[in-house]
Amino acid sequence: MKEYSSLSKEELIELQKKLNAEYEDAKGKGLKLNMARGLPGAEQLDMEADFFNTLNPNSNFKSDAGIDCRNYGELLGIQEARKLMADMMSISPDNVIVFGNSSLNIMYDTVCRSMILGVCGSTPWCKLDKVKFLCPVPGYDRHFAITEQFGIEMINIPMKADGPDMDMVEEFVNNDPAVKGIWCVPKYANPTGITYSDEVVKRFAKLKPAAKDFRIYWDNAYNVHHLYDNNQDDLLEIFAECQKNGNEDMVYKFCSTSKITFPGSGIAALGTSKKNLDFIKSVITIQTIGHDKLNQLRHVRYFKNFDGIKAHMKKHAAILRPKFELVHEKLEKELGGLGIGSWSNPHGGYFVSFNSMDGCAKTIVGMCKEAGVNMTGAGATYPYKKDPFDSNIRIAPTFPPIEELSQALDIFVICVKLASVNKLLEDM
Amino acid sequence: MKEYSSLSKEELIELQKKLNAEYEDAKGKGLKLNMARGLPGAEQLDMEADFFNTLNPNSNFKSDAGIDCRNYGELLGIQEARKLMADMMSISPDNVIVFGNSSLNIMYDTVCRSMILGVCGSTPWCKLDKVKFLCPVPGYDRHFAITEQFGIEMINIPMKADGPDMDMVEEFVNNDPAVKGIWCVPKYANPTGITYSDEVVKRFAKLKPAAKDFRIYWDNAYNVHHLYDNNQDDLLEIFAECQKNGNEDMVYKFCSTSKITFPGSGIAALGTSKKNLDFIKSVITIQTIGHDKLNQLRHVRYFKNFDGIKAHMKKHAAILRPKFELVHEKLEKELGGLGIGSWSNPHGGYFVSFNSMDGCAKTIVGMCKEAGVNMTGAGATYPYKKDPFDSNIRIAPTFPPIEELSQALDIFVICVKLASVNKLLEDM
Repeated sequence: MKEYSSLSKEELIELQKKLNAEYEDAKGKGLKLNMARGLPGAEQLDMEADFFNTLNPNSNFKSDAGIDCRNYGELLGIQEARKLMADMMSISPDNVIVFGNSSLNIMYDTVCRSMILGVCGSTPWCKLDKVKFLCPVPGYDRHFAITEQFGIEMINIPMKADGPDMDMVEEFVNNDPAVKGIWCVPKYANPTGITYSDEVVKRFAKLKPAAKDFRIYWDNAYNVHHLYDNNQDDLLEIFAECQKNGNEDMVYKFCSTSKITFPGSGIAALGTSKKNLDFIKSVITIQTIGHDKLNQLRHVRYFKNFDGIKAHMKKHAAILRPKFELVHEKLEKELGGLGIGSWSNPHGGYFVSFNSMDGCAKTIVGMCKEAGVNMTGAGATYPYKKDPFDSNIRIAPTFPPIEELSQALDIFVICVKLASVNKLLEDM
Repeated sequence: MKEYSSLSKEELIELQKKLNAEYEDAKGKGLKLNMARGLPGAEQLDMEADFFNTLNPNSNFKSDAGIDCRNYGELLGIQEARKLMADMMSISPDNVIVFGNSSLNIMYDTVCRSMILGVCGSTPWCKLDKVKFLCPVPGYDRHFAITEQFGIEMINIPMKADGPDMDMVEEFVNNDPAVKGIWCVPKYANPTGITYSDEVVKRFAKLKPAAKDFRIYWDNAYNVHHLYDNNQDDLLEIFAECQKNGNEDMVYKFCSTSKITFPGSGIAALGTSKKNLDFIKSVITIQTIGHDKLNQLRHVRYFKNFDGIKAHMKKHAAILRPKFELVHEKLEKELGGLGIGSWSNPHGGYFVSFNSMDGCAKTIVGMCKEAGVNMTGAGATYPYKKDPFDSNIRIAPTFPPIEELSQALDIFVICVKLASVNKLLEDM
């Protein structure tokens, strides 16, 4: 393969002609394909049919402690659900609150609470002139949307192969008291797929924040979402590291079973220090009487324990692995050596991160859309939806059946090639 | 029966002696009874076993519109769940959002959102010097706890037999731009059991608020919670009344199935104008991807339609009616004519409101506790937990089995009598 940048104007024009024809042909197919969001596919959901027998008319609805899960109460969650989520988070059940169906909702409420009531007695953020969050980029659009809604200034932190640029993180956190948080997806990161190295986690744990209400928002959404049995990323447990450094109040850990059982009908949890937990409890006791304990019971009875979750996720991996491998193969085959794009090849998670030539991402996503392939909006992986390089595209291969994924990728690579050729010609 | 106030000092001392003996005797029984919270009893919960077969491994998990309820999406709720809740709220499905398991949580978030983001573009309340809510008293302690947490000043509005004192409500709402809301439980009110008259609802709908972001928080928690088939209260539908008066944005209607199916595992909804709904949607789309659609589906499939809910609630009534009648009989028999207490005799809802002689409620509740009967804290039915008369006690007869309820009431009446005698002697 010859790099596009080495082609002459005439060669590029010839190529443009050919690609335009391929693109028009693709558009003519009238496809409707979706690679936009990190949704489980139907095959994954069908696999879980037994879940719906977990609670049935003959079930005992009492928790191990004798709590009737059909009635009010247990604000922190039933003990066995706290244990299940705690084991998944590698933290003690005493440090866990099980909430409702959405870890995003927990994160939103955590920021929201800080805005109005502060953090463990600090000044409410809405009373401050300026509040800032650090945002490793590219990152998760829904994180950035939360801080944007609350008018919190977001600062881009470049992501490296082993995590965020920690020199920058330390510089900001340790010196600027307006910096109150950082958004992290530390394992199989959304979208880059990388996992933070031990060194990065240790540097996080050793931060000396200028703001006493600075917290690390540690969204371990893909904790157990490995693609391979024998090629799994390991993530150092951050809470214990923070404790070692006298920083145990500095981290909120979030997780959910949204992509383990059912998106929208899973259970979500927060893991944090006793002090944080007591403060949060004192606030949420006014917000609700308790979350859905029957759904907690369903999850506990279905999985029995954390080993049950791990075994279950191997079945997910068997479905998802071929999809990720197809993405890698297609991109390698069609774009390898052309110098017009690079992409991640993650060991887990829900995304492949693609970087086009600078200034091409919006065009590519727009062209895909016109040809019936819905991608995550270009720029979405940056705060304020502004990718300064207009380069990053998040590919979500999990939802479409593999045949549709294949069709969608065929169109995607045509769009990448055509947009790149157009750009090279424009820049000449 | 002779009124206690007409007894001589000697007669009172004699009575005190007798009651003290009865009280000591009661304490000696070492009972542990609960009349504190509005919880359904086990018999009600057991009745619903079939609910747990509504979704099973063989179910079709698609909504009528073909939405896979096991996956992400449908922020406003699946259409048939919006319809079910809309019919219960006598409003159009287009005006309804189905949320998670708790209407309290919707109310909390609604106030919280107004604090940080304002209401449909108004100034965020956290930027104002003063925000006030009107609180009909006695009322629901958890409402008052929300406004207290956010530092909103609460103003007591006396409850009359047909609803809040509307002269006062009009005076405040129409003149004071700091008044942003009023808490209402308009039917079988918590705790007084009264239902707002048509006249009161019409006066609400005709308010001319000084604040454009004033809203009525209409918590119709006991909408279908009748005790009798042929003696039911009717509540005029407020949203249509507001529309007639060009005030359609003025009301938020809240409801849930917490006391229809399962507390903590029901579904809750908000009904409001298109303008309010669009604003709220634009905010919550950042907070969550969607609520639990499988639980929405369970509810729709279980009840089929609003008639299904109504039929179901007759079974609840059959369980609850004897409990409420027992309360009335015991109080009438033991306290009737003594002039030391009055109480409500509601046609529905979850509570009986008891008014002791002024200055006795705390003492009575404390004495009950000492004898093993847990009541709602005295004062709880007032903002800041301050009952200016120290008189109102909320009796929650639904949770204990009827034998235990009977025992608890026996102790309660002893405590009422003894506290009253003590007070009369003190005041002599």
